[in-house]
Amino acid sequence: MPISTRASFWGIIIIMTYKKYSPQDTHSYAFGFFPSLEALTHAPQHCRAVLYESRAHKSDALPKIQTLCEVHHIPFIQDDKTLAKLAPSENTFIMTVFDKPNTPLLANENHLVLVSPSDMGNLGTIFRTALGFGISHIALIQPCADYHDPRAVRASMGALFSLNITKYPTFEAYRAQFPHHHAYPLMTDGAKPLDTTPFIPPYSLIFGNESAGLPPHFAQLGQSVVIPHSHAIDSLNLAIAVGIVLYTATRT
Amino acid sequence: MPISTRASFWGIIIIMTYKKYSPQDTHSYAFGFFPSLEALTHAPQHCRAVLYESRAHKSDALPKIQTLCEVHHIPFIQDDKTLAKLAPSENTFIMTVFDKPNTPLLANENHLVLVSPSDMGNLGTIFRTALGFGISHIALIQPCADYHDPRAVRASMGALFSLNITKYPTFEAYRAQFPHHHAYPLMTDGAKPLDTTPFIPPYSLIFGNESAGLPPHFAQLGQSVVIPHSHAIDSLNLAIAVGIVLYTATRT
Repeated sequence: MPISTRASFWGIIIIMTYKKYSPQDTHSYAFGFFPSLEALTHAPQHCRAVLYESRAHKSDALPKIQTLCEVHHIPFIQDDKTLAKLAPSENTFIMTVFDKPNTPLLANENHLVLVSPSDMGNLGTIFRTALGFGISHIALIQPCADYHDPRAVRASMGALFSLNITKYPTFEAYRAQFPHHHAYPLMTDGAKPLDTTPFIPPYSLIFGNESAGLPPHFAQLGQSVVIPHSHAIDSLNLAIAVGIVLYTATRT
Repeated sequence: MPISTRASFWGIIIIMTYKKYSPQDTHSYAFGFFPSLEALTHAPQHCRAVLYESRAHKSDALPKIQTLCEVHHIPFIQDDKTLAKLAPSENTFIMTVFDKPNTPLLANENHLVLVSPSDMGNLGTIFRTALGFGISHIALIQPCADYHDPRAVRASMGALFSLNITKYPTFEAYRAQFPHHHAYPLMTDGAKPLDTTPFIPPYSLIFGNESAGLPPHFAQLGQSVVIPHSHAIDSLNLAIAVGIVLYTATRT
């Protein structure tokens, strides 16, 4: 990463120059006040810097963010240029630069497993929903959308800073690490309707991708489950299906 | 709408020229095979024309669409130029032009009421979910996103062609028309948790907009309901909340 310097009356301040996000980067960006607060509150150890532009002073959240930066020794820098260059909209006044965390899944937790989700917005919405229903461990089976992309971070409203998320090259690689989890593949031809399915912890709630769903052989893994709906639609939207299942599973 | 003519050996063919969608238009567009099939199957009386480009011949769906057009006397026209001009992506080979239908709500049906939804994508997802759970009557309280916008049509996967949707200037205008519906406002501080709420038909499931939710006075309308979730998030995404409530209400 290129480093430029600015001389000031008081000395030399080192300014990092941040570029447009690329999936190969070891860092990413949380744009906006709410996602920045989530990052600084739940994952301060991964926050590298907070950049804001002059109009950010209008927000009540700025002093709170400044305090969190001071407490955790995170650079808090006014940088209108970088915001102008990188922000997704003209009304984005603040961004948090964070190192992509390594957050392994634990064996005693329930897991949400998403096989090849391809839509970043969906992924962010699912993260937020999972956090809302207390499912904090999420396995992503590759190929999958880049969940560190600022668009996914934003769609999650910063929920990913409170979650343990790990990518696996294949479903088998995930399964080999957690062979004792009770598997509940969600399928449009699942054997048991959702409302009569008891979910026995620790469980893996397994969902296919947006267009294809899970291949048939997933039914052999455990108790396949269907969300009953009318024949007027082919299938529910992935994020909606995940929301309904998480709500139901965590209340039984 | 401008009309151009083309002389041919056999006579005069009248070609309509379609412009980029505008909310003021009395017609809109359903892009893609699946939404086109939904339009032609469930609302052929509102379909004005189907335009396709040469690459559409690769799809198995084209003959089916052609047959539907013939049955319903709907012009079926190869028009690469219009597709190139209007299609949202390079991989969109077909579009259906439809007149915005007038589909009033019925008093003996359960209603989904969305107060000022602002996100077109959310709206489309909600339409598809509502259709999936058999709630086919939807009231939209203005201001609200334009649900005829091709982006909303696409997000709904054409579900809106099977729904009765009506816009109302205010919630009071809706309520005056359906005073006997049992009102269930969904609120983050709702009085009753979702899973212990009996939904007595005919009912109105009422949701606020994406950022603000419903104003407090909605609690007086009937039985306010909350979807229990952890304090780790402020609120669920609107489409997710609607999905969970529709699933639950229609199974009780």
